[in-house]
Amino acid sequence: MGSPRALLRWTRVEPLGAPRPLMLSDFSTHLKAAADATQSCLATAMRPFGDLPIAQGMRHAVTGGKGLRGFLVIESARLMGAPEQEAVYAGAAVEALHAYSLVHDDLPCMDDDDLRRGQPTVHKKWDEATAVLVGDALQTLAFELLARPASCLGAQRQLDLITGLAKASGAEGMVLGQAQDMAAETSAVPLTLTEIAHLQNNKTGALIEWSATAGAVMMGADPALLRRYAQSLGLAFQIADDILDVEGTIDVVGKATGKDSASGKATFVSLLGLEGAKLRAQDLVDEACVALDDFGDRANILKAAARFVVSRDL
Amino acid sequence: MGSPRALLRWTRVEPLGAPRPLMLSDFSTHLKAAADATQSCLATAMRPFGDLPIAQGMRHAVTGGKGLRGFLVIESARLMGAPEQEAVYAGAAVEALHAYSLVHDDLPCMDDDDLRRGQPTVHKKWDEATAVLVGDALQTLAFELLARPASCLGAQRQLDLITGLAKASGAEGMVLGQAQDMAAETSAVPLTLTEIAHLQNNKTGALIEWSATAGAVMMGADPALLRRYAQSLGLAFQIADDILDVEGTIDVVGKATGKDSASGKATFVSLLGLEGAKLRAQDLVDEACVALDDFGDRANILKAAARFVVSRDL
Repeated sequence: MGSPRALLRWTRVEPLGAPRPLMLSDFSTHLKAAADATQSCLATAMRPFGDLPIAQGMRHAVTGGKGLRGFLVIESARLMGAPEQEAVYAGAAVEALHAYSLVHDDLPCMDDDDLRRGQPTVHKKWDEATAVLVGDALQTLAFELLARPASCLGAQRQLDLITGLAKASGAEGMVLGQAQDMAAETSAVPLTLTEIAHLQNNKTGALIEWSATAGAVMMGADPALLRRYAQSLGLAFQIADDILDVEGTIDVVGKATGKDSASGKATFVSLLGLEGAKLRAQDLVDEACVALDDFGDRANILKAAARFVVSRDL
Repeated sequence: MGSPRALLRWTRVEPLGAPRPLMLSDFSTHLKAAADATQSCLATAMRPFGDLPIAQGMRHAVTGGKGLRGFLVIESARLMGAPEQEAVYAGAAVEALHAYSLVHDDLPCMDDDDLRRGQPTVHKKWDEATAVLVGDALQTLAFELLARPASCLGAQRQLDLITGLAKASGAEGMVLGQAQDMAAETSAVPLTLTEIAHLQNNKTGALIEWSATAGAVMMGADPALLRRYAQSLGLAFQIADDILDVEGTIDVVGKATGKDSASGKATFVSLLGLEGAKLRAQDLVDEACVALDDFGDRANILKAAARFVVSRDL
């Protein structure tokens, strides 16, 4: 499939005037625009934090990702007719929360990674204590952004977003998934496919689901279709991550690869085989797209995102 | 002044029928009742988390403290006429947040403490990774409790509490204070009194202020008097902490003492002298009490709390 830049070039030579069901260049443009918007929002929000190491570390931690979660918030908001500015704040919040989880997961006592998004991890560039505090303050910032006084969403909708984000990221969501993942690494019994799916749903899926349903929550609308989309997308994303761990290089992925296969950990690839994993991911992408059929062409960007997730690391 | 038990005995022999401006036994009873209520609230909130190490660690981390911050929330709510049940949830939230900060501050890369509240710290009883995740999930829980759907406070008031807690605990509050404290430990130039007061206001004062003004925020009332009370109380609390580090024993304080004097760190005691620090703390207690004079006898418990703070570790 190639890089976003290559895709952009490719779409430029498509015949003009032809039907445009799914333009991956549109997706790339939207993804980049969403990342720019959430980055800018975070930069403004962190300006009062000054230039101490924790503030520098916070800025470092939120930089360089593709911004998939923020993008999902913004696109789901667009789909549901939610105010764009509110979507940007909520997108910035989930990017801050995601960044906190990466900073803490990279710590020596956790996954012990030196590289993230092609850059040194926070504890390598500064130190462990700074990394703990950077993660802590990024989590706080996520909730502060959602509770912001100037929002026009209405206080109850803001609370709904906060409750959802807390459930998705706390001891019943992302933190639980990370704990389950660490437990699996030292367990003598490899996980089954169902157990891996459950673990990954906690560790990664819940936050993706919060992001992709945020637009519906903002408008007080039924999030059922977006949830079905998000659940398939989330699982496809994780399978793609396992595939990248086998096939990717450090240059493409921006972090160390081959760790899971080297450790003998059960993954989607070890249980389904490489081809089986690719087929399952593709099926999930199709399911994600079907879930949005009722929205017609307006859902094209989100559908493109699903297709892109299995072709790239986001 | 003696222990709470000794004070309780002493107050029992006061002449009956005499004016009761400040009964320290009343304070002890209220403090215990508040701690029981917030503990019970947290236990219920954490029941769905099961019995994995992170859930066990979370329960361990919120147990055994005096619950000063939760008490301040509940008493300020009582003073302002806020619903008791809402106060208990907010009190539980700040106790969860405070517990998160202790678990992370105790980590080997931070203050490296083995003992907290007379018990092994989370990373000693389990491991560092569990301690990082326990702290993370406790912070999340704090915001989840404040955003709870069943609250009768009104969504805007809940958001006000959330925004305030985020500001008090994040990169402009508690986390900043901890970073400043760590920086001071490795700095060649000892801090001045003003700098220590500023650092401690971030590290400890902001959360105490949030707690003591929570009742006013819940009712949409002016928090100015409670803020004056809290600011004096917070500083008195920190001076008392420095005094305890010099005078206290591990049995009384429940954690290692003498660390600051051994490290040659500038503290209120090193800068004011032991007697000077005690006098300053007493002045601050008097200022805290005066700030609440307009509330008459209804503020007696909060005034007693101020007096108690300088006599005991809370």
